[in-house]
Amino acid sequence: MKKRVPVGILAATGAVGQRFVQLLADHPWFEITTVTGSDRTVGQPYGEGVNWVVPGDPPAAVHDLIVQETVPNLDVPVVFSALPTALAHEWEPKFAAAGYVVVTNASAYRMTPDVPLLIPEINPDHTGLIPAQKAARDWPGFIVASPNCSTTSAVLPMKVLQDAFGLQAAVMTTLQAISGAGYPGVASMAIMDNVVPYIGGEDEKLEAEPRKLLGALNAGAASIELAAMQLSAQANRVPVTDGHLASVSVKLSRPASPAEAVAAFEHWRPPAVCAELPSSPERPLIYRHESDRPQPRLDRDAEGGMAWTVGKVRECGVLDLRFVSITHNTLRGAASGSILNAELLLVQGYIEG
Amino acid sequence: MKKRVPVGILAATGAVGQRFVQLLADHPWFEITTVTGSDRTVGQPYGEGVNWVVPGDPPAAVHDLIVQETVPNLDVPVVFSALPTALAHEWEPKFAAAGYVVVTNASAYRMTPDVPLLIPEINPDHTGLIPAQKAARDWPGFIVASPNCSTTSAVLPMKVLQDAFGLQAAVMTTLQAISGAGYPGVASMAIMDNVVPYIGGEDEKLEAEPRKLLGALNAGAASIELAAMQLSAQANRVPVTDGHLASVSVKLSRPASPAEAVAAFEHWRPPAVCAELPSSPERPLIYRHESDRPQPRLDRDAEGGMAWTVGKVRECGVLDLRFVSITHNTLRGAASGSILNAELLLVQGYIEG
Amino acid sequence: MKKRVPVGILAATGAVGQRFVQLLADHPWFEITTVTGSDRTVGQPYGEGVNWVVPGDPPAAVHDLIVQETVPNLDVPVVFSALPTALAHEWEPKFAAAGYVVVTNASAYRMTPDVPLLIPEINPDHTGLIPAQKAARDWPGFIVASPNCSTTSAVLPMKVLQDAFGLQAAVMTTLQAISGAGYPGVASMAIMDNVVPYIGGEDEKLEAEPRKLLGALNAGAASIELAAMQLSAQANRVPVTDGHLASVSVKLSRPASPAEAVAAFEHWRPPAVCAELPSSPERPLIYRHESDRPQPRLDRDAEGGMAWTVGKVRECGVLDLRFVSITHNTLRGAASGSILNAELLLVQGYIEG
Amino acid sequence: MKKRVPVGILAATGAVGQRFVQLLADHPWFEITTVTGSDRTVGQPYGEGVNWVVPGDPPAAVHDLIVQETVPNLDVPVVFSALPTALAHEWEPKFAAAGYVVVTNASAYRMTPDVPLLIPEINPDHTGLIPAQKAARDWPGFIVASPNCSTTSAVLPMKVLQDAFGLQAAVMTTLQAISGAGYPGVASMAIMDNVVPYIGGEDEKLEAEPRKLLGALNAGAASIELAAMQLSAQANRVPVTDGHLASVSVKLSRPASPAEAVAAFEHWRPPAVCAELPSSPERPLIYRHESDRPQPRLDRDAEGGMAWTVGKVRECGVLDLRFVSITHNTLRGAASGSILNAELLLVQGYIEG
Repeated sequence: MKKRVPVGILAATGAVGQRFVQLLADHPWFEITTVTGSDRTVGQPYGEGVNWVVPGDPPAAVHDLIVQETVPNLDVPVVFSALPTALAHEWEPKFAAAGYVVVTNASAYRMTPDVPLLIPEINPDHTGLIPAQKAARDWPGFIVASPNCSTTSAVLPMKVLQDAFGLQAAVMTTLQAISGAGYPGVASMAIMDNVVPYIGGEDEKLEAEPRKLLGALNAGAASIELAAMQLSAQANRVPVTDGHLASVSVKLSRPASPAEAVAAFEHWRPPAVCAELPSSPERPLIYRHESDRPQPRLDRDAEGGMAWTVGKVRECGVLDLRFVSITHNTLRGAASGSILNAELLLVQGYIEG
Repeated sequence: MKKRVPVGILAATGAVGQRFVQLLADHPWFEITTVTGSDRTVGQPYGEGVNWVVPGDPPAAVHDLIVQETVPNLDVPVVFSALPTALAHEWEPKFAAAGYVVVTNASAYRMTPDVPLLIPEINPDHTGLIPAQKAARDWPGFIVASPNCSTTSAVLPMKVLQDAFGLQAAVMTTLQAISGAGYPGVASMAIMDNVVPYIGGEDEKLEAEPRKLLGALNAGAASIELAAMQLSAQANRVPVTDGHLASVSVKLSRPASPAEAVAAFEHWRPPAVCAELPSSPERPLIYRHESDRPQPRLDRDAEGGMAWTVGKVRECGVLDLRFVSITHNTLRGAASGSILNAELLLVQGYIEG
Repeated sequence: MKKRVPVGILAATGAVGQRFVQLLADHPWFEITTVTGSDRTVGQPYGEGVNWVVPGDPPAAVHDLIVQETVPNLDVPVVFSALPTALAHEWEPKFAAAGYVVVTNASAYRMTPDVPLLIPEINPDHTGLIPAQKAARDWPGFIVASPNCSTTSAVLPMKVLQDAFGLQAAVMTTLQAISGAGYPGVASMAIMDNVVPYIGGEDEKLEAEPRKLLGALNAGAASIELAAMQLSAQANRVPVTDGHLASVSVKLSRPASPAEAVAAFEHWRPPAVCAELPSSPERPLIYRHESDRPQPRLDRDAEGGMAWTVGKVRECGVLDLRFVSITHNTLRGAASGSILNAELLLVQGYIEG
Repeated sequence: MKKRVPVGILAATGAVGQRFVQLLADHPWFEITTVTGSDRTVGQPYGEGVNWVVPGDPPAAVHDLIVQETVPNLDVPVVFSALPTALAHEWEPKFAAAGYVVVTNASAYRMTPDVPLLIPEINPDHTGLIPAQKAARDWPGFIVASPNCSTTSAVLPMKVLQDAFGLQAAVMTTLQAISGAGYPGVASMAIMDNVVPYIGGEDEKLEAEPRKLLGALNAGAASIELAAMQLSAQANRVPVTDGHLASVSVKLSRPASPAEAVAAFEHWRPPAVCAELPSSPERPLIYRHESDRPQPRLDRDAEGGMAWTVGKVRECGVLDLRFVSITHNTLRGAASGSILNAELLLVQGYIEG
């Protein structure tokens, strides 16, 4: 890999965009050469226009890039989209139609049948949808999406159980960090010394997205057969800065004891392609045996914020098994997850290196 | 009620004991005349020996009571027990054997077949066990217990659904406040910016106690037939000062729509006897229609901390319905709950007024 | 007092306005008959238009009042103003010019020479400015202001020391609760697990307002001679829901030992008129001797949130003495403080009862 | 540096000891070969005996070291002491008497005249006390101490001002993180939604230690002439996980404007020896111009948690200038600070490399 692929970040001045900037600043394969932002910031150097809300400072390499308008005339082949939903809905297809590879963190097209909803450790073959997507819409470019950060927190252990025992149903309750709502996001008056049992649209995403992620690419590679499983979710906001926790009860196709499930977690290995991706962690799934783990503050940063930490597998008195799973919502669950998707696209040849 | 019944508080210097002291200081029917405490505090005036950890100051009426040893030679007919489990296990039977009415908040005898596990709004008839308890053990006194504060948070809405539609199963995930662990309880280093998915023994209590509370007094009034329902629970500690939240999915015997369940919650009325109990709230169950309620900080103090606030009833994609319920864990879920039990005992004649 | 004085609340739908509504709902002397709000809410019943953010529900008595525009055609003699600064600047004089008594919590006119900046326990005679204010501007009505909530937290103990020993200088550092910023106010991402050493304009208010509150009404009763003292302040936002803490070092005119200062705090009594005011607490100043008090969570609600709790008086190694003081910022420091001012105006005859 | 110096950690199983373990695991100059712990853990492999409370896991290199008793028969020339005060008082002299270099984070001997109280960026020459210490006590080894973490947070900017303008007095109020109290440390019931204006002994340390750190080695190099300055401090615990903030007002010997002080901060450079120390950051002092910085969550990790971040320099209405300073209390303020001291000792030849 001689030269880094130049990339743009759409909505680089928002909270998710800032994470893209921070994480891509030293990326071995990609180089940020373009950033776009709101009307307020267009025309300013990024380092001056941005209201930087993540720890540290804007990376030097990006400091003097002039913020562009979010229109498809950027001089890069690949854009990472941190656009808000409505703007993503409008602009991502325009970028794909103009030939860009759009790697998005937005929800607008996640459930669109010919758009891959992708986590390389789970369904790297779903990129097989890309040719059909391009053909059907007559696009030179295409869109690839990441799941919602709450979905991410629960879905890898679900995948492991699905592979090992078959997965028929999951009842989920999530405890989600405030950073999932961006900045300014949740008012401190709303969440301090409190829990809010509501995150707009999140229950629905938790009940839909896993079925696509755990689904199978159809014969013609034109759509995904959604996994046949029942899902039920209740998303809660809790006063934690980072890290989403999912408390999950599952019904399996074949009976399994807690010990067998733990063994499945411990023996699971990611698809071979993950070994080639710089952002894929050595151990994507860490099983902890302590009775009080996983915990957001202690486990969210495992493997650079890219691992799922799972624990507390035991019998469920109603379904079959219970477990608890945690991921870092703004790393694995957002910007880093999209970057990992772009790495997969490059290895698979969908992005030219 | 001419004269107040003199009562003692066992372990009055601990966190739960302090709540008993605070709540009983102005009680219309009971008067604190005796307090017991640890060896360190015995012999001191209560107001000086206690390390007061609840807002405000120790009530004047109790300030000068000399702390006694916790032995059954107290000059009162009724004792409220805030003893830790091991001490409760040892001493509560000795008090009952010595003729005291023991109204306990401890877990030691909750699941003992002939000890009523009591919430007046749910099962006031379970005091019918008392004669059998006294007879079987040849005790002049007896023990009556309150459920764990996490059980309490979920059990009244379960009762309402049981009465209206039959209740076959419940999958519960709780988000519990730090005050549930007493003082010093949870280390701030353990819970700040964090969630701990473990509270010792709490999952088991959540999976056992509701079956007794929702069970039926047997023909001979010598035991409770546990309710035939499957229960599964995951208890989590969250950084909230007060208020336990339960996220519950239920399977019903007869199908019910969310609207029917909401109607059941809104039309439910407590047993008639509750109207006579000074600590029983006017509205023990408040249903809120806002999509983001109930919340601990906004709802825990409803009806003086004695109400269940329920919301978010909707279809469960796996079982039948989901809902969220909140109670104040140190009021309804602990000291106030026990005081309410004592009020019931007095009205029913088990305590002499 | 036969009939309650009808009053209006300007900006009743905001966070401060809601506190006015809550506190005035059962006031013995005042009756809310009019509420105003933003364009979005005008014309709606208050209970439906308001996004209620304080615990509990909007009081029944106010639920059906139709929200009015904030213009001086309201059918009440007295308005409580919870307007944001810019609107207060524009509209409060118009209300006064139209004959209304304007009791404001806003900062717009606090330091205006002929507007009383008032805390009844400190300077009830400053209402003596009112005739001059009306005369100079040819207003049938007038404006009376409350200080900033951070000023309030420190100023009563400063008054006591001023009276007892003379006060030459104060170096203040405050630790202020998030509710001081209203709703949505401070983003949770900004303050959780954090301290923000900046609150816009607050240092300046802390360095100016005490000089007026502790100043003397001039001979002609046309202005206040500012107290001759040096002030220095650093305001910090901390992750606390309610309660402002001030850490203060003072230089006195006459030397005093810590014991003498404590005696001054303990012997201080409010002006006689306070005994007539329903919102004035029995003990406006509580001195606590524990080494770890006052604390926001334990002391903010003392005397219904209307008391100053002071502690930790000791020698300052640089100036003369140090102490710590706490008040409830949205009660004593905001809405309740203004209501107390209105009570004083009624007793003094500036409002007709 | 061919071979790493073998070192021991005293009280390696406590919270501070764990930080030493974590930070020394990959140190270029030192190698942990010995750990000591409480009776409970002696004889167990470290990884099993320790109740690990910092994020991540115990380093592999230390996992199998058998925990030793804390007695001076360890096979290392250097020990890092994380002992509690009372044990430090008893055991550190015994280790020094037995020939060990004792690099301590404990408070027991900080103010002892012939024990260097050391921060390499401030007073690296104070190690000049070591020969006198050894001679006076006839010790083959010696003790070197780090200051309290609250002292550390304020003292480097004080040093810069002292050098540039002379420093006569400082009034300090600190806002300190819970991790400063170790584990379990502060009860969550005590600090959640709260501020505690008391940390045992901390005010006194803040009023004493800076005078030694900023003092001068006497002619005979047998003691430190304490800096002639007046100090006054109020330490507060706030609900923040890591990072101590100090709000400081200072009186200077020569008048200086805020701009001159900012220039002094920006132009200050550490002593030349610091460039040789692996743990000394490139920029030990970062001045931030934003009006709302420094903040614990955003600035505590600057330069790997080893930098002071200073901001908000402005005129003080009572003394001369005010500023705010932040450090990471368990890194710069504790374990990392002691490691840096050991690096200095090695470069200066007091430890043999």
